[in-house]
Amino acid sequence: MSAPRVISRLASRAALARRSPLAATASRRVAIASTSTLPATAFTSMSVRNGSTLPPRSTSFTKPTEEHLKDLKAILSTPTSLLSTLDGSATPDDLASYNDDWMNKYHGKSPIVVKPRTTEEVSKVMKYCYEKGLAVVPQGGNTGLVGGSNPVHDEIILNISNLNKIRSFDEVSGVLVADGGVILEAADHALAEKGFIFPLDLGAKGSCHIGGNVATNAGGLRLLRYGSLHGSVLGLEVVLPDGTIWDGLSKLRKDNTGFDLKQLFIGSEGTIGIITGISIHCPRRPAAMNVAVFSLDSYEAVQKVFAEAKGHLGEILSAFEFFDKQSYALVKKHQEENGGERKVFDQEGDFYCLIETGGSNAEHDEAKLTGLLEHLLGTEMVLDGVLAQDSTQFQSLWSLRELVPESAGKAGSVYKYDVSVPVGKMYGLVEKMRAKLREGGVLEGDGNPEGPIRAVAGYGHMGDGNLHINIVANKYSDEVEKIIEPYVYEIVAENDGSISAEHGLGVMKAPYIGYSKNDVSIEMMRKIKTLFDPKGLLNPYKYII
Amino acid sequence: MSAPRVISRLASRAALARRSPLAATASRRVAIASTSTLPATAFTSMSVRNGSTLPPRSTSFTKPTEEHLKDLKAILSTPTSLLSTLDGSATPDDLASYNDDWMNKYHGKSPIVVKPRTTEEVSKVMKYCYEKGLAVVPQGGNTGLVGGSNPVHDEIILNISNLNKIRSFDEVSGVLVADGGVILEAADHALAEKGFIFPLDLGAKGSCHIGGNVATNAGGLRLLRYGSLHGSVLGLEVVLPDGTIWDGLSKLRKDNTGFDLKQLFIGSEGTIGIITGISIHCPRRPAAMNVAVFSLDSYEAVQKVFAEAKGHLGEILSAFEFFDKQSYALVKKHQEENGGERKVFDQEGDFYCLIETGGSNAEHDEAKLTGLLEHLLGTEMVLDGVLAQDSTQFQSLWSLRELVPESAGKAGSVYKYDVSVPVGKMYGLVEKMRAKLREGGVLEGDGNPEGPIRAVAGYGHMGDGNLHINIVANKYSDEVEKIIEPYVYEIVAENDGSISAEHGLGVMKAPYIGYSKNDVSIEMMRKIKTLFDPKGLLNPYKYII
Repeated sequence: MSAPRVISRLASRAALARRSPLAATASRRVAIASTSTLPATAFTSMSVRNGSTLPPRSTSFTKPTEEHLKDLKAILSTPTSLLSTLDGSATPDDLASYNDDWMNKYHGKSPIVVKPRTTEEVSKVMKYCYEKGLAVVPQGGNTGLVGGSNPVHDEIILNISNLNKIRSFDEVSGVLVADGGVILEAADHALAEKGFIFPLDLGAKGSCHIGGNVATNAGGLRLLRYGSLHGSVLGLEVVLPDGTIWDGLSKLRKDNTGFDLKQLFIGSEGTIGIITGISIHCPRRPAAMNVAVFSLDSYEAVQKVFAEAKGHLGEILSAFEFFDKQSYALVKKHQEENGGERKVFDQEGDFYCLIETGGSNAEHDEAKLTGLLEHLLGTEMVLDGVLAQDSTQFQSLWSLRELVPESAGKAGSVYKYDVSVPVGKMYGLVEKMRAKLREGGVLEGDGNPEGPIRAVAGYGHMGDGNLHINIVANKYSDEVEKIIEPYVYEIVAENDGSISAEHGLGVMKAPYIGYSKNDVSIEMMRKIKTLFDPKGLLNPYKYII
Repeated sequence: MSAPRVISRLASRAALARRSPLAATASRRVAIASTSTLPATAFTSMSVRNGSTLPPRSTSFTKPTEEHLKDLKAILSTPTSLLSTLDGSATPDDLASYNDDWMNKYHGKSPIVVKPRTTEEVSKVMKYCYEKGLAVVPQGGNTGLVGGSNPVHDEIILNISNLNKIRSFDEVSGVLVADGGVILEAADHALAEKGFIFPLDLGAKGSCHIGGNVATNAGGLRLLRYGSLHGSVLGLEVVLPDGTIWDGLSKLRKDNTGFDLKQLFIGSEGTIGIITGISIHCPRRPAAMNVAVFSLDSYEAVQKVFAEAKGHLGEILSAFEFFDKQSYALVKKHQEENGGERKVFDQEGDFYCLIETGGSNAEHDEAKLTGLLEHLLGTEMVLDGVLAQDSTQFQSLWSLRELVPESAGKAGSVYKYDVSVPVGKMYGLVEKMRAKLREGGVLEGDGNPEGPIRAVAGYGHMGDGNLHINIVANKYSDEVEKIIEPYVYEIVAENDGSISAEHGLGVMKAPYIGYSKNDVSIEMMRKIKTLFDPKGLLNPYKYII
């Protein structure tokens, strides 16, 4: 990525401040301190449907034993491919990072982690588990936010981190073929060396796997420009529940010979197969990239700026993100605690937006961006703005947006919601949520200095109608969850939105699918799940229940 | 669409000729004279697999009778929604355009055409047919090229041309919702009025339906820029084989709540449901569009120009098409016969390529295009070139490429193949095909002045690795087909290609799916077909047999 260019004629404008680089952002994945353990009663909303707290362990699944462990060991090529508490080769603590989820909200109790080194090993493990009736949870980087990638009970954890090779890259077609366990950032770095870009970017890039990205149909920061994985993924290699390897690793951009089967696995959250390889079309890396961040006084202003950005920037607009002052406050606090410089804007606002451009001609891109900036400043649509001058500032400005979830996690236990609704209605949902919590007497504030809810932050991908609501509590509690859910899903459904824009369903949202999908859809989903996994062994208790 | 701009500084270059507008192209759909009827023996290659010429009529389907006709009439709101030879309300000639395919190669014998006016009517018709065991072929514009949209035997034709309303368009999100029977060009015209563009364009746009486009996963001319329908379609309304209406008409760009069911219907060729409504994300129409056509002396030169075009034009490259001298000769002959002016290049070549740009800033686009043109002319990569100066020339230059299939159809009976292979290997397939036909003694030429094959033309979408081979014969014959098939599929399979890049399988390619799909894929397809259509009533004898 080339360093962003200075737009010199704007340099003198006080409104478009240029300051020293912000403190470099630490690795995006940090351990989030465990502030609570999940109380069993946290699942009351689920219990309404299921008559129990968490979905109970299915009696139809075989309980993993030392005998199974011995058999699985025999299947695997190296002893280090298996960790288990059953034979004392691992302690429960050793397995904690596999059993617990990213938010430390969901906690499994699996005694076995299998880490195959080849697709064939994945196949053999699945074949064995299928025959024995052992339930399995496929796991990538375990960075999911809906409890989809860790066990609910004692499912065997099939972690694919050892499948981490880039298989091929074709510089003519831009087609990358890689193992499912390749880390997203590693894939993108390898592509950068060849002048290409992975058509997906998200905060967890340093930890998440591309196989997991495909399994959850991750959306991320640049969907606006590069579209969804349903368009860019060309082929998949998948191990089916019974161990059959499906080689659907097409490298062709066009292939109309039958149902596009790979599409079923994109977003299937590991319920009908384990993605061991992907083939994806990668665009050329933009020769020039620029980023600017603005403070604004209202959500209406953010919408206006979005319309102007689309008009002025056209095909080079690669991201349009927004965040509110509550989000920004969390980031500032987090940076302060880590000794990072925080002064960015002379004039802060109630809202912020980040605009990224990526194009093939730096001069043209700067002209387009300058045109936009002059218009925004001239019409006073923005309060203040900062334009990155070099690649360090580029990263620093991006971190203002990307650090929101991590900063929220540092501030407490976070109820995270990821929804999509029409752009005009996005922020209204955050305001409704705040009002609901205030009404419930749990929002910290003047009348409630000790309220368990410390902040309600709204941010997201403007271009995609994708809103993230992070509700920061001093701890996870039944009382708070009851106020939030299913209310948050009700207000999404009222606006014809989706209760999961990009995070998926997992164990968290499975009971609420009815808010976004009708009965015919749910029935079709159930039939497809049964078709592929008649024993229901793969990633049970989640997705479609 | 704004008129293409003149690149004045290049105007003086003799090499980049600017001439008077070519004759305006007539409507793209023209009746192709019936030069032959399909001999039953034309399906010998199919017979190898099936032990008969065409797949025989299934005895498990009910034969349509006057009784059924009466019942269907009662279901429909107006008498004009039904045509039948059973009650004398129509003659076989009246039904010919529904029973015969676009190429006049495949001929069905259905006695009933139903044209429902609402999704509910489609549902009622399907429910009735499902209960009675009547087979049904869904039909849109009937412009398919693989015999997929007309009956094989006496299937009831369910034509959706009366479902032709645009339901809504949202200028903020760019989301269009429309009936499946809306004609592609009509949808694009409606969008143009609002400054948007349909993210698909193809030669048959004046006749094909958007529902049919989705059902065949049409690729077309601008996939390079706007990606595949798997990425741009947001939702579908589908009537399932048993008459159930599936309302999956989401308008959201992101929705991760379960299997992305709509993807199964995109490219399903009417075998598991009838698409009655679509919701699609439409980009802004480029403010500036340019087109240039070049003559070149080799396929290697075409590949080099493609690489240069990607480098110079980046994100504004919206199409890169190529065609060979045989294709160009067919177009010239066709234009000559229709009184159109034909002189385009001072220096013709063995190959031609068409480059289209579309961007938001005319000045920037012209600068990028000028840079490319100067480079191409300076390095003598091209022999000659023409740049459109106005919208008439824009259309005229496009017609050189778009008229190839129509011109081939005028020249004789055409064996049409649509394949994808890696870009570097594309043209080698055309050369192999010519050699095979020459070897078989059927290619017209010095040694064989009366050879039944008049031309073998190669053209296609360079950016997508999508090659079209049109073999023009004086008539369809068993002898010729035996030489071509399955040879053409064998050479595609040798190059890990697809035997159908964008046309689909239909009745023509169904027996050859094994050349592009492995057994696991075919088995999964079969299971999905059975899951949705256990009686196999919808579009039988095709796709997956």
